[in-house]
Amino acid sequence: MSDFQKSLRTTITRLPKRGHYEKETVYSILDEALYGTLAYSRDGQPFQIPTGFCRIDDAIYIHGSVGSGYMREITGNRLPVCFSVTHIDGLVLARSAFHHSVNYRSVVLFSEGEVVTDEEELYRALEVFTEKMCPGRWADIRKPNKKEWKATMVLKFRIGEASAKIRTGPPKDDDEDYEMEVWAGVLPLELVRQSPVADPDLKEGVVLPDYLG
Amino acid sequence: MSDFQKSLRTTITRLPKRGHYEKETVYSILDEALYGTLAYSRDGQPFQIPTGFCRIDDAIYIHGSVGSGYMREITGNRLPVCFSVTHIDGLVLARSAFHHSVNYRSVVLFSEGEVVTDEEELYRALEVFTEKMCPGRWADIRKPNKKEWKATMVLKFRIGEASAKIRTGPPKDDDEDYEMEVWAGVLPLELVRQSPVADPDLKEGVVLPDYLG
Repeated sequence: MSDFQKSLRTTITRLPKRGHYEKETVYSILDEALYGTLAYSRDGQPFQIPTGFCRIDDAIYIHGSVGSGYMREITGNRLPVCFSVTHIDGLVLARSAFHHSVNYRSVVLFSEGEVVTDEEELYRALEVFTEKMCPGRWADIRKPNKKEWKATMVLKFRIGEASAKIRTGPPKDDDEDYEMEVWAGVLPLELVRQSPVADPDLKEGVVLPDYLG
Repeated sequence: MSDFQKSLRTTITRLPKRGHYEKETVYSILDEALYGTLAYSRDGQPFQIPTGFCRIDDAIYIHGSVGSGYMREITGNRLPVCFSVTHIDGLVLARSAFHHSVNYRSVVLFSEGEVVTDEEELYRALEVFTEKMCPGRWADIRKPNKKEWKATMVLKFRIGEASAKIRTGPPKDDDEDYEMEVWAGVLPLELVRQSPVADPDLKEGVVLPDYLG
């Protein structure tokens, strides 16, 4: 895959070594995220919406109710938006307070939203979204009926400008601090899926499917 | 603790039952988050910065380099900002695609940034921040020296307007779908601290402190 062209908005100026512009890197960070934060602005006032999303090719998709005020606002007025995701992979414990840090992978991208009207694209976005949250789920469940489709709005954001920022590895202390009697290293963090909890109203005899086992 | 007064910006209009305005609720969600997303806007263009933070009383604090462009921009121009945090607590697996959801706790707040100049407040913000990331750490490490203090900028955002949005519990399906032969329930997610990984350059003989054991 190619690289995103650096723009004024996406070029990492603070700690530029942490900046990454390869599509593959950006997309793998997006695809692992269970939600992202969408920001838009009205009369200089920024707003943020945490939302689930999925990526297909060079676009991300979000969905909501057709009654969603912010979705109508950002598409109706073709507002510029900023979308970000962040994974915190570990706490970086240095010998000095100053060099404490976190290992992370984040993506920030800029776009504008469009309402998806093509039925095939709508359907595919919902399927990819569901499969991303829980691989194997789509085949198992009742698909949206006409009424539900009518109640759902899907927005597409083409990924034109994007960059990733990544920190990995052990702490980096000042030379003279390596002699200190202080433990230093990384405390890795992981988002772990726990054992499934059945709906109290689960129909008798229905067992946990293999893809959740 | 009291409640935040609902404002036009913080009143949850979409699924209002999920809206919460008690300070205690808002603060517990903030305090558990390892990072938040700060949004500001320049000429109608929104930007987002994922950043670590801590809360003390009715304010949140972030820190960065005195060379940080965005920190100077938002304080120099007294830009309105929006800050949010989100915890995803579980995937809600319904019988229908339409009723799939996530259990989450999010906070969105509005403020303006001020540069902290009071030395005691600076010091306290850094201590609370470090202790939030890793309780017990502050007493163990080398505190910032003069040069490091001079290189650090701390911003304070008073929490004037804030709201939380929370979903908990099992899926809520359409009545007729409860008869389907489809497993339904919640897949809980938890951010788990893994075993500490020592710095390859750790001084010989330094052992893991109790607060990390």
